[in-house]
Amino acid sequence: MSVSMLSVFVFGAFVVATSADTQVGLGAKVLVFPYETDFSYVTLMPLKDMALKAFTLCLRMATELPEERQIILFAYRTADYDELNVWREKDGRISFYMSGDGAFFHLPPLGTFRTSLCLTWESVTGLTAFWVDGKRSTYQVYKPGHSIRPKGTILLGQDPDKHLGGLEALQSFVGELTDVNMWDFVLSRSMIQAWHYGHKVPEGNIFNWATIEYELNGNVMVVDDD
Amino acid sequence: MSVSMLSVFVFGAFVVATSADTQVGLGAKVLVFPYETDFSYVTLMPLKDMALKAFTLCLRMATELPEERQIILFAYRTADYDELNVWREKDGRISFYMSGDGAFFHLPPLGTFRTSLCLTWESVTGLTAFWVDGKRSTYQVYKPGHSIRPKGTILLGQDPDKHLGGLEALQSFVGELTDVNMWDFVLSRSMIQAWHYGHKVPEGNIFNWATIEYELNGNVMVVDDD
Amino acid sequence: MSVSMLSVFVFGAFVVATSADTQVGLGAKVLVFPYETDFSYVTLMPLKDMALKAFTLCLRMATELPEERQIILFAYRTADYDELNVWREKDGRISFYMSGDGAFFHLPPLGTFRTSLCLTWESVTGLTAFWVDGKRSTYQVYKPGHSIRPKGTILLGQDPDKHLGGLEALQSFVGELTDVNMWDFVLSRSMIQAWHYGHKVPEGNIFNWATIEYELNGNVMVVDDD
Repeated sequence: MSVSMLSVFVFGAFVVATSADTQVGLGAKVLVFPYETDFSYVTLMPLKDMALKAFTLCLRMATELPEERQIILFAYRTADYDELNVWREKDGRISFYMSGDGAFFHLPPLGTFRTSLCLTWESVTGLTAFWVDGKRSTYQVYKPGHSIRPKGTILLGQDPDKHLGGLEALQSFVGELTDVNMWDFVLSRSMIQAWHYGHKVPEGNIFNWATIEYELNGNVMVVDDD
Repeated sequence: MSVSMLSVFVFGAFVVATSADTQVGLGAKVLVFPYETDFSYVTLMPLKDMALKAFTLCLRMATELPEERQIILFAYRTADYDELNVWREKDGRISFYMSGDGAFFHLPPLGTFRTSLCLTWESVTGLTAFWVDGKRSTYQVYKPGHSIRPKGTILLGQDPDKHLGGLEALQSFVGELTDVNMWDFVLSRSMIQAWHYGHKVPEGNIFNWATIEYELNGNVMVVDDD
Repeated sequence: MSVSMLSVFVFGAFVVATSADTQVGLGAKVLVFPYETDFSYVTLMPLKDMALKAFTLCLRMATELPEERQIILFAYRTADYDELNVWREKDGRISFYMSGDGAFFHLPPLGTFRTSLCLTWESVTGLTAFWVDGKRSTYQVYKPGHSIRPKGTILLGQDPDKHLGGLEALQSFVGELTDVNMWDFVLSRSMIQAWHYGHKVPEGNIFNWATIEYELNGNVMVVDDD
């Protein structure tokens, strides 16, 4: 967990809570959200337009937050809609929302040890599933025919209740996030398992953690993953 | 997660809730029952007469249904009798009924990740056991001397309270079912473990998933297993 | 699950609830106690006198009995004393009694899948421990200096409250017992682990399952272990 080469940015992030600069590349780095805030978040810039009819979103995370605490895990919002949000709910379920009612999954609890979590969805069938440490949940059918809209904002750490605003500390992420990758298609089981084990897979064509463009806001640390 | 070559059947299943046609073969396919209904089910046609003095029934399943919800896992019914039903009970036990009172087993909970489940029974001793991911439960002695009657109907997804009727949404299966195979004899431990791990075993001589004849009714999806 | 060569004994056990004959050898066989009775038990004849200053007792068992149900696992009784009883208590603890107050251990729950259980004790130190699937519990010091008395009766399946009588259905064993072996000394950790994995260890010099002399009483089935 040495802060090594990025210590300038890290301490910059501690001190300067505004006007972030865009950084590039988080390979072998972890984002540490050290405590509950309504101002710490990381904005991600996608490699392509987010008009999506299918996707795979993968990340690794760990948290010490209590079991009954709501937690935002990923938020993509356009002006009027929560286009793609992933939550841990107060009842412990993991949920996935696109513009309205969500789909809810009973998964093993998130905790202090790292969980690898992927989410797949495709519009043509509506089939969606979470993948925990490479194991697929039961499929659910969620919003077949739907499309995700482009030109929104992608946040880690906070849920924006309106476009670029309305953050709530009690929904914030506290803990570690790393290896956030996204593809505009559904990865196969063998690819998701390979990703879980850290093997080589096709690079995320929406986000690729190693080359990702991002902005740190508030108190977020970038530390070596070890 | 692609629905590939069977997309015609899938969307047929979505749209047409009546007058199913017989299909053949489900190798590498999963049946997805996406939500609670009293009209979605799959009828299986056995390769031989179901007059049975012994059997092994194997399947793989996953469900997000709450723990206290009754779930039908397999139903074979003749005009007057539930000849062979497998349930998850409200108290979480897995049960096996032949024409009357059942046998109840405390097994690890069924959930969102796939469980492989086999059931063996033979009339001469009445010895019966469930096998979860290749591990045998404690034997119980259940209806020694009994015979299962032929000429009934085999359903996945619903429990018929009378022959071909009386379906209840609150007992329906929601989730995924695959690899349903049945033999008219008791497989050995090593065969059941081989089946669990996807290795080659003698083909089911009552049902063989790869060549099974079936009819989809209501909203049941056939998707690639991955 | 075939009962093969022992079917004569099995059906004998079903039909004849009295005047058992002594049988020899249970290698690769399991005793199935199919339901609660106050009359089903198996008597074991030791290879030597049971005057013991140390012992190792090993067995494999599985049960579907509810968690709060008391269960006798092994009973050795002389005219006036319960010389060596092993129980699962109502509170789930596993206990060991020699002529009076017992020693109580918190072990993983016994259930439908097989558990291998060993118990070691030696008089000189009083050190005693259970071994579950080859893993030792914390040592307790229990009755240092004590001796187990010879010339009693060894029962599986029931607890005699007096010598050869006073059986209670609500304490009876229901489930499977196999591979009961006993030595008049304390086996090493590596020997107990070897036994757990089915490797070759010194033959039990008090009981050796492969060559054991036993009598079936009431409804106890002898079935192939698979």
